Amino acid sequence: MISVYFCPMIINVDQAKLFEIIEQVFLGMDCSIEHARIASHSLISADLRGIDSHGVARLSGYVRLWEAKRINARPNIRVVHETPSTAVVDGDSGLGLVVAPFAMEVAIQKAEQVGTGWVSVRHSNHFGIAASHAMMALKKDMIGIVMTNASALVAPTFSKERMLGTNPICVAIPAGNESPFVADMATTTAANGKLEILQRKGTPAPSGWIQDSHGDSTLDAHALKNGGALLPLGGDREHGSHKGYALGSIVDIFSGVLSGANFGPWVPPFPSYVPMPENQPGLGLGHFLGAMRIDAFRSAEDFKRDMDLWIRRFKSAEPITEDQPVIIPGEPETETHAFRMQNGIPLLEVVWNDIMQTAEKFKIKL
Amino acid sequence: MISVYFCPMIINVDQAKLFEIIEQVFLGMDCSIEHARIASHSLISADLRGIDSHGVARLSGYVRLWEAKRINARPNIRVVHETPSTAVVDGDSGLGLVVAPFAMEVAIQKAEQVGTGWVSVRHSNHFGIAASHAMMALKKDMIGIVMTNASALVAPTFSKERMLGTNPICVAIPAGNESPFVADMATTTAANGKLEILQRKGTPAPSGWIQDSHGDSTLDAHALKNGGALLPLGGDREHGSHKGYALGSIVDIFSGVLSGANFGPWVPPFPSYVPMPENQPGLGLGHFLGAMRIDAFRSAEDFKRDMDLWIRRFKSAEPITEDQPVIIPGEPETETHAFRMQNGIPLLEVVWNDIMQTAEKFKIKL
Repeated sequence: MISVYFCPMIINVDQAKLFEIIEQVFLGMDCSIEHARIASHSLISADLRGIDSHGVARLSGYVRLWEAKRINARPNIRVVHETPSTAVVDGDSGLGLVVAPFAMEVAIQKAEQVGTGWVSVRHSNHFGIAASHAMMALKKDMIGIVMTNASALVAPTFSKERMLGTNPICVAIPAGNESPFVADMATTTAANGKLEILQRKGTPAPSGWIQDSHGDSTLDAHALKNGGALLPLGGDREHGSHKGYALGSIVDIFSGVLSGANFGPWVPPFPSYVPMPENQPGLGLGHFLGAMRIDAFRSAEDFKRDMDLWIRRFKSAEPITEDQPVIIPGEPETETHAFRMQNGIPLLEVVWNDIMQTAEKFKIKL
Repeated sequence: MISVYFCPMIINVDQAKLFEIIEQVFLGMDCSIEHARIASHSLISADLRGIDSHGVARLSGYVRLWEAKRINARPNIRVVHETPSTAVVDGDSGLGLVVAPFAMEVAIQKAEQVGTGWVSVRHSNHFGIAASHAMMALKKDMIGIVMTNASALVAPTFSKERMLGTNPICVAIPAGNESPFVADMATTTAANGKLEILQRKGTPAPSGWIQDSHGDSTLDAHALKNGGALLPLGGDREHGSHKGYALGSIVDIFSGVLSGANFGPWVPPFPSYVPMPENQPGLGLGHFLGAMRIDAFRSAEDFKRDMDLWIRRFKSAEPITEDQPVIIPGEPETETHAFRMQNGIPLLEVVWNDIMQTAEKFKIKL
């Protein structure tokens, strides 16, 4: 049995045990042992890093996509086009949690050979958190870059209509003695997961996060369900929303148009009950992944020495208030990862129950 | 003489004539004919695209940097390290306006050979607008990516201190029948040039653009001169400034740390009267440039057909108000470029006088 303790609504689960349960679920979906292991690793890395919205809380969502035959548990993931530094990978409708690590391996191999590797992916599905894949590059002394498009929730500047996903960008950069620099961000003011937290709490959203069905700024955290939209980073034109819109567009084009996947409003949705967009121009959803070998530019030793200097200088920048120093991107997630590896992953009771029900569906003994 | 007409404070100058004057100034600085031509092209492309803050208005600033011996008019720009898909270029303290096109040519040549090319540049200076260099890739059916670090004007989230430049990112993507997608943006809420316009007008800045010397949000457009700072895209933590800070940091690391240039608060300033930062860890300022051959991923024909579809679909997104359709990044600049090529470049009288004085310094006959 599992060692758990009860706070109000929180169940703490050992990460190794949680991994085992998830792996069994993916095996129950008829994934190969290797794919079940990779997918579980991708998924649980979100919980370990504290990105609870993208981790095991989504397990049953992936299962429902498989039940709706939108995910192929036995995909033939393959390179369909390549040059020495590039490739297009077709995910064969497999789990993005498996397709993205495959593509990142291709990028890393190409970087080993010619300095950098760049892979655009079509015919994939949701891949969890971008950081999980980008960080594969770190142990090879490479910079990892990962982005993905997603179904349309975001209105471009001046648009009433949702045209883009939250389209995250992750860049992972190795350091020497310091922890790596890992920026992983939606190209919106706030990720959808943060809005969902406000919805559960019943509190209003800050201005600049969402607009209502008329395109007017609103504080109603539920506006998205009523024809509203998330806003690009910047919030409105005066505060640079055209830049967030441009960033989300770049992610969409690199992931969708460059690979032959869907793009813009045609990207497949994550919830299995949402109908597929009509007249899709491509295959599945798209990712874009890159790896750059540090020593393709300068010695890894020199680079990491300077990265340590960069990180220490930024951490010691004069803070506005003494109790809140400047944070290096990825620093809180690295700390959460270390803590949760030791102390287990705290899950909301509702998430834990959902996992239990999913496990039951596959008759997994706990 | 030059064909000019006078609006209040505006002088309209034919672009070919303006090019000639600028070229003469660079020749007066002892640039080679080739470098003078390239630098003039880089500089005037900003005015042609309507980015007046980064064009000929800065000509006298470059001259002053040369007078202060911070710019080398006869640089030995060279590749100092390379792999099939990467290079580090040393700009030998040359004009960024010349160094960046050199580096972009290297990136394009590598992309021709192995699919993509990525060049990190050290020992350079200000390079004008990023779009000018990124768009070199378009005519080769390549995607161009250009970024640069710059002297510290921007405070990271939670910082009182200025640590980053406005660090722009440009991505230029070819289309078929439609105009190319060209996003060129500072990673701040607003570029410094926009703030300068408010300063001249004496109007307050919108919230979220700047903070004062205590790190408090302010509407005072002059706060930057009094120890304040520009804010990263997002404005404050609640609106995602940690994302703008992360983007500016990525630009700084790719441009500065990867090449061996300066980074963070050590990047050399543009105004020649501002002292150089002490204990600089690198050489000059840094850029990062990339070129990706479209057909290293899929046929350029298929890609451009889908880009046309992408552009048309986004332009036809349901607008909030009928009189303001959704804009494709680069669309206004493409229109301005076409108009100014035909109708001349409108310059503020103060800018025109500054160019005249600079020309006089080199005894250029007009």
